[in-house]
Amino acid sequence: MGRLARVNLWSGKVRYESLPEEVLRKWVGGRGLGVYIMLREVDPRVDPLSPSNKAVVATGPLTGVAGVPSAGRWASVTKSPLTNTIHDSQSGGKFGPELKFAGLDAIIIEDSSEKPVYLWVKDGRVEVRDATHLWGKDVHHTEDMLREELAPEVGRDEAGKIKVACIGPAGEHLVKFAAIMNDKNRAAGRGGHGAVWGSKKLKAIAVIGHDKPKVAKPDRFKEAVVKAMDKLKKNSVTAEALPKLGTAVLVNIINKAGILPTKNFSTGVFPAADTISGERLAKEFVDWEKQREEICWGCPIGCARYTRVEKSPFTGEGGGPEYETIWAFGAQTGTDSLEAICKANYLCNELGLDTISMGHTIGTLMELVEMGKVPKEALRGLNAKWGSPEALVELVWRTAMRSGIGDDLAEGALRLATKYGAPEVAMVVRGQELPAYDPRGVQGHGLAYATSNRGGCHLRAYMISPEVLGLPQLVDRFKTEGKPAMVKHFQDVSATVDSLIVCKFTTFALWAEDFADMLSAVTGVDYSPSDIEVVGERIYNAERAFNVMSFGDGREYDTLPKRLLEVPMPEGPAKGQVVKLDEMLDEYYRVRGWKDGRPTREKLEELGLRWVAERLAEEGLLP
Amino acid sequence: MGRLARVNLWSGKVRYESLPEEVLRKWVGGRGLGVYIMLREVDPRVDPLSPSNKAVVATGPLTGVAGVPSAGRWASVTKSPLTNTIHDSQSGGKFGPELKFAGLDAIIIEDSSEKPVYLWVKDGRVEVRDATHLWGKDVHHTEDMLREELAPEVGRDEAGKIKVACIGPAGEHLVKFAAIMNDKNRAAGRGGHGAVWGSKKLKAIAVIGHDKPKVAKPDRFKEAVVKAMDKLKKNSVTAEALPKLGTAVLVNIINKAGILPTKNFSTGVFPAADTISGERLAKEFVDWEKQREEICWGCPIGCARYTRVEKSPFTGEGGGPEYETIWAFGAQTGTDSLEAICKANYLCNELGLDTISMGHTIGTLMELVEMGKVPKEALRGLNAKWGSPEALVELVWRTAMRSGIGDDLAEGALRLATKYGAPEVAMVVRGQELPAYDPRGVQGHGLAYATSNRGGCHLRAYMISPEVLGLPQLVDRFKTEGKPAMVKHFQDVSATVDSLIVCKFTTFALWAEDFADMLSAVTGVDYSPSDIEVVGERIYNAERAFNVMSFGDGREYDTLPKRLLEVPMPEGPAKGQVVKLDEMLDEYYRVRGWKDGRPTREKLEELGLRWVAERLAEEGLLP
Repeated sequence: MGRLARVNLWSGKVRYESLPEEVLRKWVGGRGLGVYIMLREVDPRVDPLSPSNKAVVATGPLTGVAGVPSAGRWASVTKSPLTNTIHDSQSGGKFGPELKFAGLDAIIIEDSSEKPVYLWVKDGRVEVRDATHLWGKDVHHTEDMLREELAPEVGRDEAGKIKVACIGPAGEHLVKFAAIMNDKNRAAGRGGHGAVWGSKKLKAIAVIGHDKPKVAKPDRFKEAVVKAMDKLKKNSVTAEALPKLGTAVLVNIINKAGILPTKNFSTGVFPAADTISGERLAKEFVDWEKQREEICWGCPIGCARYTRVEKSPFTGEGGGPEYETIWAFGAQTGTDSLEAICKANYLCNELGLDTISMGHTIGTLMELVEMGKVPKEALRGLNAKWGSPEALVELVWRTAMRSGIGDDLAEGALRLATKYGAPEVAMVVRGQELPAYDPRGVQGHGLAYATSNRGGCHLRAYMISPEVLGLPQLVDRFKTEGKPAMVKHFQDVSATVDSLIVCKFTTFALWAEDFADMLSAVTGVDYSPSDIEVVGERIYNAERAFNVMSFGDGREYDTLPKRLLEVPMPEGPAKGQVVKLDEMLDEYYRVRGWKDGRPTREKLEELGLRWVAERLAEEGLLP
Repeated sequence: MGRLARVNLWSGKVRYESLPEEVLRKWVGGRGLGVYIMLREVDPRVDPLSPSNKAVVATGPLTGVAGVPSAGRWASVTKSPLTNTIHDSQSGGKFGPELKFAGLDAIIIEDSSEKPVYLWVKDGRVEVRDATHLWGKDVHHTEDMLREELAPEVGRDEAGKIKVACIGPAGEHLVKFAAIMNDKNRAAGRGGHGAVWGSKKLKAIAVIGHDKPKVAKPDRFKEAVVKAMDKLKKNSVTAEALPKLGTAVLVNIINKAGILPTKNFSTGVFPAADTISGERLAKEFVDWEKQREEICWGCPIGCARYTRVEKSPFTGEGGGPEYETIWAFGAQTGTDSLEAICKANYLCNELGLDTISMGHTIGTLMELVEMGKVPKEALRGLNAKWGSPEALVELVWRTAMRSGIGDDLAEGALRLATKYGAPEVAMVVRGQELPAYDPRGVQGHGLAYATSNRGGCHLRAYMISPEVLGLPQLVDRFKTEGKPAMVKHFQDVSATVDSLIVCKFTTFALWAEDFADMLSAVTGVDYSPSDIEVVGERIYNAERAFNVMSFGDGREYDTLPKRLLEVPMPEGPAKGQVVKLDEMLDEYYRVRGWKDGRPTREKLEELGLRWVAERLAEEGLLP
């Protein structure tokens, strides 16, 4: 535990370092470790696409540990070109565990290469290799080519074991929401991490390893794992809904709650929800044989899908689509063609694009078109009105290539809407496009959006769980009382979950005590449930401090688009609602120990972050 | 007359030279001049995508001369990466005349730049400028951006006068049939000249000029022009068919002749021809207002189209499609969706692809798919069976980006078919995909294909004119007698037409004497009709000599795919026919004064090409 490789792309040199015990204890791994490294080593004011930005690839202490449920994940941490915030993106599949088997907890990628390169990680050794021949290749092609060319070095039989994370043309073209893809269809999607790799001319990381991670206390581990698995098996979401219908199970649920954002958040009810539902996907599109191959390493839930469209003109096949993707290309654009949604999704995976930001931004364009803000010539005859299925597919191509209007879409919803004179239609927080829940019908979720350090995100504190799904128990979604403390609690625990790393879908059944048990058993260091929360709180404060130094983050950024604060939901079960952010924000700051959206010296010192407090003080940024 | 700029992209230096009177007299301009420069300066064995290849951009003595009908053209000459032959590609629009107004007859582009550059040609001065910001941009976007950034240098009012030729993403990605585009929708399409620019990192040439070319003998000129215009006005093709229906008028005509190549030349009858006809295009798709803007400089024919597709899912608009394009994406692939054909055509223009090779190669893929030669995974679920409209659009994107199977398509039909184990289905001559006429029903046209120096081409000797259209008079298309001499005559006159440069569509009404008249009047040098033919013969022999030195061109290359030589046309008016090449080839060599497909010393000396004969002799390549 605690080994990292530092790769300088300018010099091509690789150095190996050990992480101090204390750092691991305080930051755990994954997101936490990445945030720590970024905060310590990178000037928060750095241009995210300049060589001085760094890109951290990290696993966590539970990643790849056999028995831990859904621990097949890895994290990318960098400063985002989309949001200018510190940013982590998590991804499943099989790449993360393989990196762990290679004996690396993290890779720090520094500077930029002049020529395209990839990293070849074999049993703990990292090599920088020429990738000129891979530049321009799409994601699937890149993975196939790398496996093919590396096969002789590991033997034909082992070639299948090589795992690849890479960027596609979108990352090369510095699309602000380009993803890092791994195992072909898995995405560290949000925030444009793919563009950061692209700016560094880093095309891919290929990895193979043979060391299985050790468990410090096997007996305690066994007990913890049995308990966790039992809970997962008894939980209706992790044992039934997700395996059967995948994340797309949410389409009908969220629509029935009246919070499925439709036509760029103009309403929360999408009449054609059933046509794009998980139920229909499972019945008509899923290839159940190939679906099994898509499941993440060591996951008992298995929510992954593999689908196929056989009906012209959107024929294709591939991994996904997830709920968020179906929403982004579907309800958000008013499109009811599940075929076109699937096709757009396949192309995002192949070209390396975040499906949420992509679909969301197409919806933004459609609203701009409806408003008459987009000159006719810019569209070159494409029907980009609400509900146009062909717009989904064509705009994915155009964005990845920055062709025509795609050059504007590639900058994300906020810059697009600003360019065409209507920034108010950008449904973003800190420049990141909001995902698939209209917060007007879920007050806590609205607060979570507004205070998300990485910008508009459902994964920092998935308040949909208590507010809509009733897990662990149902709370009144229209009320604001008690929500600030809940959001803080969810944000903190989630930050640790992203550091362990286990999949957030386990949190429908597991919580701090379960994670504390497993983490203690694996590392041999005792963590209590409250330690789990404190680690997360530390991460959340560190992130916010980074943002404060980056762009003066604070109260004015802890907000939502006016539409969600001022325009009542026009119909459905959430009719008449707006997000009552004012009722929650001060209370949120109080429970956080923040002032006006910024961490105080007291809070930072309490979390062992005096060095961060001193930096803020030096720059006059302490509240 | 006779001024050229020599641009070295490695050093960024520009030199200006004068062409000797003698060179102009012998090679005229355009294609002829380019061939002369290539033959004199470039090793015929050069790798076409290496810095040592050169790219010549040339106008001709009639280009941009007010009054000359259809003289808005320019030529690109280089060694083709598709065919390894010497290769010229001609294009209309407005770029050619503007280059002439800038006082340049040619630009020789040498070596390669390290960073993307463009050339800014202003009133005779050429400047090499950084084009990093343009790299990756599509054709339309590039032209708009260049005009925008150059506007301050010429004044807002004059910005519209700036003309641009450029490559799109396809050229940057070295697609073997990437085009050089100008005036957005005009293509120097065939042979991959766009890839040559891409390999040199030359993104564009922008030009503005103010010198109108002078006419040496105004009275004689006036007389010649009036006569030519009169002939054009009285000709049914140039006065009626082309203005009314564009080149697409040919769809029904050629189908009725039973020589519309269908499903990769498996038959010559396409049942859905009417659905993709020029008549339907004119009635349902053409935007007549915008059509007027598309017409080439100084053209009384005006065959250009501007069309719009309003029906989902292929919504779009743009220049074209031409007859060849409609055929390539339509009959060749078995697709009857004129909407999909138009859309694929728009995208080719925007991405910088030759529509003939693109559509043709998709047809090749479809035959390979039908044969079961293409692994399922390679298609990623795309329906690539005969007639699939979505395949057209997706494969254009994929080819331009070299994404997935597009990486194979980007290599052209021959390499594609070879990779998938069936080279015999590549319907090519010298590696260039055959265009829109099945030669089994037109013997002379078959000989023209087989002996085309630049590979499969309908424009070296458009035998369709006498053999099908009856211009200047009808000859029996199924007979071989007399065809060799006719083909030679057509090849030679056409080579001069490409050097003047006037549009080949004038040749439906005009011929050697008309061109001799106009050329003599403009230059003041007397050319007889037979001089016109001799210039062309010189060019044709020079080209062949280049090819002989490049790859040993000769009899074994003067052939056609076996399907056309051995498999009788299965149905329709040409039923039972094959190309009887054996009956024509020896006679062709005799009238050419060649032996086994190679120019003899005698012929070369007769044409004033002793220096070429000596080179061939030195290398043991004289027959």
